[in-house]
Amino acid sequence: MPTQTQIGLMSHEELRSEHERQSAKYAQLKAEKLVLDLTRGKPAPEQLDLSAALLSLPGDGDYRDGNGTDCRNYGGLTGLPELRAIFGELLGIPTSNLLAGNNASLEIMHDLIVFSLLHGGVDSPRPWTQEPTVKFLCPSPGYDRHFAITESFGIEMVAIPMRHDGPDVDAIAHLVATDPQIKGMWAVPTYSNPTGAVFSEEVVRALASMPTAAPDFRLFWDNAYAVHPLADEFAPAYDILGIAAEAGNPNRPYVFASTSKITFAGAGVSFFGSSDANLAWYQSYVGKKSIGPDKVNQLRHLRFFGDADGVRAHMAKHREILAPKFALVLRILEDRLGASKVASWTEPKGGYFISLDVVEGTAKRVIGLAEDAGIALTAAGSAFPYGTDPEDKNIRLAPSFPSIEDLETAMDGVATCVLLAAAEQALDNL
Amino acid sequence: MPTQTQIGLMSHEELRSEHERQSAKYAQLKAEKLVLDLTRGKPAPEQLDLSAALLSLPGDGDYRDGNGTDCRNYGGLTGLPELRAIFGELLGIPTSNLLAGNNASLEIMHDLIVFSLLHGGVDSPRPWTQEPTVKFLCPSPGYDRHFAITESFGIEMVAIPMRHDGPDVDAIAHLVATDPQIKGMWAVPTYSNPTGAVFSEEVVRALASMPTAAPDFRLFWDNAYAVHPLADEFAPAYDILGIAAEAGNPNRPYVFASTSKITFAGAGVSFFGSSDANLAWYQSYVGKKSIGPDKVNQLRHLRFFGDADGVRAHMAKHREILAPKFALVLRILEDRLGASKVASWTEPKGGYFISLDVVEGTAKRVIGLAEDAGIALTAAGSAFPYGTDPEDKNIRLAPSFPSIEDLETAMDGVATCVLLAAAEQALDNL
Repeated sequence: MPTQTQIGLMSHEELRSEHERQSAKYAQLKAEKLVLDLTRGKPAPEQLDLSAALLSLPGDGDYRDGNGTDCRNYGGLTGLPELRAIFGELLGIPTSNLLAGNNASLEIMHDLIVFSLLHGGVDSPRPWTQEPTVKFLCPSPGYDRHFAITESFGIEMVAIPMRHDGPDVDAIAHLVATDPQIKGMWAVPTYSNPTGAVFSEEVVRALASMPTAAPDFRLFWDNAYAVHPLADEFAPAYDILGIAAEAGNPNRPYVFASTSKITFAGAGVSFFGSSDANLAWYQSYVGKKSIGPDKVNQLRHLRFFGDADGVRAHMAKHREILAPKFALVLRILEDRLGASKVASWTEPKGGYFISLDVVEGTAKRVIGLAEDAGIALTAAGSAFPYGTDPEDKNIRLAPSFPSIEDLETAMDGVATCVLLAAAEQALDNL
Repeated sequence: MPTQTQIGLMSHEELRSEHERQSAKYAQLKAEKLVLDLTRGKPAPEQLDLSAALLSLPGDGDYRDGNGTDCRNYGGLTGLPELRAIFGELLGIPTSNLLAGNNASLEIMHDLIVFSLLHGGVDSPRPWTQEPTVKFLCPSPGYDRHFAITESFGIEMVAIPMRHDGPDVDAIAHLVATDPQIKGMWAVPTYSNPTGAVFSEEVVRALASMPTAAPDFRLFWDNAYAVHPLADEFAPAYDILGIAAEAGNPNRPYVFASTSKITFAGAGVSFFGSSDANLAWYQSYVGKKSIGPDKVNQLRHLRFFGDADGVRAHMAKHREILAPKFALVLRILEDRLGASKVASWTEPKGGYFISLDVVEGTAKRVIGLAEDAGIALTAAGSAFPYGTDPEDKNIRLAPSFPSIEDLETAMDGVATCVLLAAAEQALDNL
């Protein structure tokens, strides 16, 4: 098999013929006039079908929670205690330190930054808008929507390398110890977006305990994939609030989660966990913008899950749909790109993404080639602050939404684009 | 009947005996150990029951809107077109200029101020945080939650007298023409909270067309009670966007509405109407905090209403519950306070409140007396900026939540408190 030779080791002649081969394959691909989308971490319709019962819940006459609260009426900033207890158990957070909100945890993250900018946080010397500069650490590749929030407010983003066990804590500890302008850090601790990395206990402890020059440094701990393993075993739920409190930093973590990738992506329930002081501070401001979250939707979810085991059983059904898709992508990557050494990729144990690194300087080209062939990939650089991948090599793959058939076609196409771009570059470099 | 004499015309002797009479009545009232609440404009349980069908809607297998959108998944910042069309018809706003959101229009108002502070609006020379002072006009008595938002951000609030046909437009026109720091005005144009005033067409036109020193002056037009008359006839829905555009101020109005007092107070749908430019600006920022509103809840509401006539028919059922409560409050006020001339009150044609003015300097005392007798009234001054009623005379009555029986007991108690406080003051003044 010609592609089984490493492209870097090919002779001029071999390269030319490899380029021709991939060009021909690419021409075939374009001729198929595909319309396929691997851009976003959207659940597939069959995953949404798993929560079909929500469409007629809570059901006729059912509108009171266990405390007798009429969920239809105004009031209650904390959300339903019973639902908070279920997710508290799953996330390792006491019910009293976990709030349930509306359909987007991103909104809570956004509001926390807004309140910090305009009012200052619990430990802030002054509102962040009154600081000459505010910086956030951004483990990269990371989640583009996180970076979009900080960018929109002019917060300076500092990229931090991601490793298999979390971000580079030595680099982080050094920066936060000396720079009081660093007020926060984005983090997806479990099955990180997009690498799938699970932060090790060592990394978690280091982040919770490291000295910071800013008294109001905050970990934006987005545990979006806490219960989203691709195999039977769940990732450990480290008690980040407890660990931080023990280390003398009780107010450092802001923990987020949601059911967006458990029930309905657009109509789920979000969660926010933090210290008593942080929650009181948050509620004092969020109470200005809302009389409370949609409690009927929370009741709907409570009835649907029943308890934490209900969530675990439900996630097993998601796994049955997702695991084969991830396996397929990894198989195609290995089959098509394994021997040629033009790419490397993560093999996540959970979450929604695979992070693919292609030949340095070719990610944009690969994504452009794919686009021209009708395969939409996340924009080049989107997993990096300011949308700039300094090495132009990272591509985020989102295998969840397409059908198995479409995914196979799309990934085979992507592999062709990767090989073609690599051959083009190698020829250019001769 | 002794209370049929005007307190102001009573002799010393008559006053003493009036004070004794009301003191005795008040002692009886306290002995009843009531627990009654007239504080908030909450729908009564039987009103919520009118929307019981929502508890099992949209129903099994129903998750696509008319465009084929899968409402369960992520996406769509504008909300469902079919639901926007229904409320566009009711509010006099083109569908394309009306967005549907989550369960709180208050949140949209809050966000618009946040975005204006941190980014500046469409016509802003700079973000509002970079202005030395930002002021808002606050027709008073008005809605406490509006005032709480502006107060929380340190926006200076300027009280404007409310009249039966809206706020004092001459005072407003003079202020906004000369003071570029005035960036906005709160307004509840239909059945205003708490007076029930309906802005006249003249007032609407004046507000939409008056020259303003601030190029980015905005009307925060909270049409929360647009379809909430207490009699058969609906208040006119003035085309505020069209009127403002004709006057050369297309970006001036931000229009809000919600189903909070139509379906479920805590689980409804909010609406935001404005010019194309404002909506594009808003979406560019709101898209940073959310991937879209809860479309399943919007579909639920769409199925429930069917069309604008469905909303109108539904509101007729609310009227059947609310109108007798308002009539009861007005009858008790007239019976107990009419002849004694110690109070005046509004007789709203719609909305959720009655505004009661007691003897100047006694509102706090009345509310304190009522509280001690187990009748909770909205805090004194809450309908004024900074919670300060300069004349200490206004009390907001919210008749919707209690049952007819409780309402009768509560209002009779309130009347006793009003008379007792008036007699106390008259004796003190002797």
